[in-house]
Amino acid sequence: MNLELALRMCEAAVRQAGREGALISVAVVDAGGHLVAFQRMDGARITGPVLAPGKAYTAVAHRMPTADLAPLVLPGGELYGLAGDRYVCFGGGVPLGELGEPGDGRGTGEMAGAVAGEVAGAVGVSGGTVSQDVACAEAAAALWEGA
Amino acid sequence: MNLELALRMCEAAVRQAGREGALISVAVVDAGGHLVAFQRMDGARITGPVLAPGKAYTAVAHRMPTADLAPLVLPGGELYGLAGDRYVCFGGGVPLGELGEPGDGRGTGEMAGAVAGEVAGAVGVSGGTVSQDVACAEAAAALWEGA
Amino acid sequence: MNLELALRMCEAAVRQAGREGALISVAVVDAGGHLVAFQRMDGARITGPVLAPGKAYTAVAHRMPTADLAPLVLPGGELYGLAGDRYVCFGGGVPLGELGEPGDGRGTGEMAGAVAGEVAGAVGVSGGTVSQDVACAEAAAALWEGA
Amino acid sequence: MNLELALRMCEAAVRQAGREGALISVAVVDAGGHLVAFQRMDGARITGPVLAPGKAYTAVAHRMPTADLAPLVLPGGELYGLAGDRYVCFGGGVPLGELGEPGDGRGTGEMAGAVAGEVAGAVGVSGGTVSQDVACAEAAAALWEGA
Repeated sequence: MNLELALRMCEAAVRQAGREGALISVAVVDAGGHLVAFQRMDGARITGPVLAPGKAYTAVAHRMPTADLAPLVLPGGELYGLAGDRYVCFGGGVPLGELGEPGDGRGTGEMAGAVAGEVAGAVGVSGGTVSQDVACAEAAAALWEGA
Repeated sequence: MNLELALRMCEAAVRQAGREGALISVAVVDAGGHLVAFQRMDGARITGPVLAPGKAYTAVAHRMPTADLAPLVLPGGELYGLAGDRYVCFGGGVPLGELGEPGDGRGTGEMAGAVAGEVAGAVGVSGGTVSQDVACAEAAAALWEGA
Repeated sequence: MNLELALRMCEAAVRQAGREGALISVAVVDAGGHLVAFQRMDGARITGPVLAPGKAYTAVAHRMPTADLAPLVLPGGELYGLAGDRYVCFGGGVPLGELGEPGDGRGTGEMAGAVAGEVAGAVGVSGGTVSQDVACAEAAAALWEGA
Repeated sequence: MNLELALRMCEAAVRQAGREGALISVAVVDAGGHLVAFQRMDGARITGPVLAPGKAYTAVAHRMPTADLAPLVLPGGELYGLAGDRYVCFGGGVPLGELGEPGDGRGTGEMAGAVAGEVAGAVGVSGGTVSQDVACAEAAAALWEGA
């Protein structure tokens, strides 16, 4: 993860929110779950600074989209009880693929925790409906995958 | 939001509680979710100082009555897992509409967070049954809407 | 402690703040340290909802003015290490004397924790200088002592 | 506060860090202390996502530069004990002056908390030495003052 790419991912999420008619916050975290970039659109809810980094953290911690965690944390589910203040287990958090090999250009400026073959970070979006949040997060993640 | 109006909203909630036969706590927060006024009736539970500000914070953060959040955070709901230490997702929190235009008299003494076209604060009530809490919060919110 | 008296104490603190030229938040807690009433003046800092209840809680928990705790929590002091998120150990918190006998009129509507011969609650003020906060808290406490 | 200006403030802080030879994180919060924008430079410490928003929150909550709080929270200082999980009381947090009048162009897209005559937000920087952090935060704040 690096700041330049994180900023471009934030911008992509914000652009998608414009298309969706949503007002969102977007967070990008590194492989350690630590914030790299955050943007809250004018008029977006004050809960965004809590939930967007929370979704990103959760996505990188569990190495899966938070939408996929949702069924697992239901009563009777494998991870029931996980939901709480630390984790946000509904859609809007998307992990950022695996790192390529050293030398592929994405390694420059890597941050805490990145190891080839592992999740390199995540994006989290909050503020719209869950499906809008997911669409915005995926628009950001597409940039990463294309990098 | 201003203190004078917040106090009148607290009094309206307490009066409604008298009609309901409930003993409640009531909290009014500004658009940033920060407490402006709080009152706990004699004999009301000590959980009120936790839950009433929590409901008010949640209502302003999500810009909807906490009663409307309740079904969304059920197992299988869109926002399951949201409930936790930070959010209180059952009835009793009511957001306070949008601010009017500058000069409409409600701008005087505004506190942190008020911007025309956005949620300007919230009221949260705890101590009675959920339906009593909602009735008390709505009695307070009616004052805001009529101001 | 009861709500009516707590409100009058809040008003006394706010009036004193007007004389001091300070913008304050004031909190009154019962003998259990739980909030009974809170008021934030228009324009007062958003830190008041944190610090004023914190000072009141600390004053009732330690049964002394928070100003008197200040030297005790210094390095080498008897209570060094006490200061932190839970306690606020500088001036502005004042415990509310001992309860009188049953039947003296202050017992009506007593809340959690009040026992004759013990501290019955506290007032906490934040927003001005420490000396302003203390003056406002003492103005509130004077009402209690005269009740 | 609005996102566009917050992003320009982040960029100004990062540019200043380049001049200082420091690797920093920078946070901009609104008048409610809620995050609007955050950027962490490549290679900057993972403590930045905690400390930079913390400094910004503290600066807006106390309406003064966190550097000015530092002597007050020393043992024997007026506010000893304030430092803790919630507040960060050393240099690097700078409050953002008062809002101008309606119509001065800064009101567009304002977020939670902006009221003429009050602190409108804050910037917090962490990652370099304290003096580097202060220089970066002031470079960001200069943009606000010139806006």
